[in-house]
Amino acid sequence: MKHDPDCIFCQIISGDIPCFRLYEDAKSLAFMDVSPLNPGHALVIPLHHAANVFESPQKWVLAAMATAQRIARAVRETLHPPGMTLYQSNGAAAAQSVMHFHIHVIPRAHGDNLPMNWKLKTGDLDEIAGLAARIRVNVN
Amino acid sequence: MKHDPDCIFCQIISGDIPCFRLYEDAKSLAFMDVSPLNPGHALVIPLHHAANVFESPQKWVLAAMATAQRIARAVRETLHPPGMTLYQSNGAAAAQSVMHFHIHVIPRAHGDNLPMNWKLKTGDLDEIAGLAARIRVNVN
Repeated sequence: MKHDPDCIFCQIISGDIPCFRLYEDAKSLAFMDVSPLNPGHALVIPLHHAANVFESPQKWVLAAMATAQRIARAVRETLHPPGMTLYQSNGAAAAQSVMHFHIHVIPRAHGDNLPMNWKLKTGDLDEIAGLAARIRVNVN
Repeated sequence: MKHDPDCIFCQIISGDIPCFRLYEDAKSLAFMDVSPLNPGHALVIPLHHAANVFESPQKWVLAAMATAQRIARAVRETLHPPGMTLYQSNGAAAAQSVMHFHIHVIPRAHGDNLPMNWKLKTGDLDEIAGLAARIRVNVN
């Protein structure tokens, strides 16, 4: 399993950078996005460092996708949003900001009119922590 | 494997509705989106009918994701876009228009400024067919 000490997601995996953790297994980690597009916005990453969907070995992509499904179900059970988008960006033109493969799990609201590319804006950390705690209970 | 005769993606699987096919295996099918956001925009579906990421059994979600990675690599090799987005919508609030789990594979261009929700607009079918043929060659 590759670890890149300069990658902030690898530093989250190693515990050197804290996160609002939702779920972890032998191959993947899920945690809250601190720049949420909507409440409940989560991120899922494979533990193996690879920049994107092109470079990541299949088993790590699938491990992250299995966890994204698990998290989507947990977020739905928790917040009951009327929609959910799974979003996975590769490359600067797709607004990828951290070069470690990741899947966004984004609860949707009617008329939220989210942009496909968005500017990072840190949210209310206490609110995010509270949401993390509520969702964590529903992760099976 | 569930088949819904009223679902247009199930009708594509059965061959009752034609498509610009990119790849098929025992569990999934990839074909061109006829309302592309950008040239090369493809769709990947599991052969099993389920409405969304919540209802689809894990093995079908992962089969589709494995194929989406395969298609993303093929599209990149073909068109060399500076980015690629994998996008998977669930529910009306996320602009899901066909109620059969599907993953969009969307090549990105710098400044394309795609909306997260988009209106369907049928593209040039000849152009799409030509792209399909070029990409199909690169599917490994």
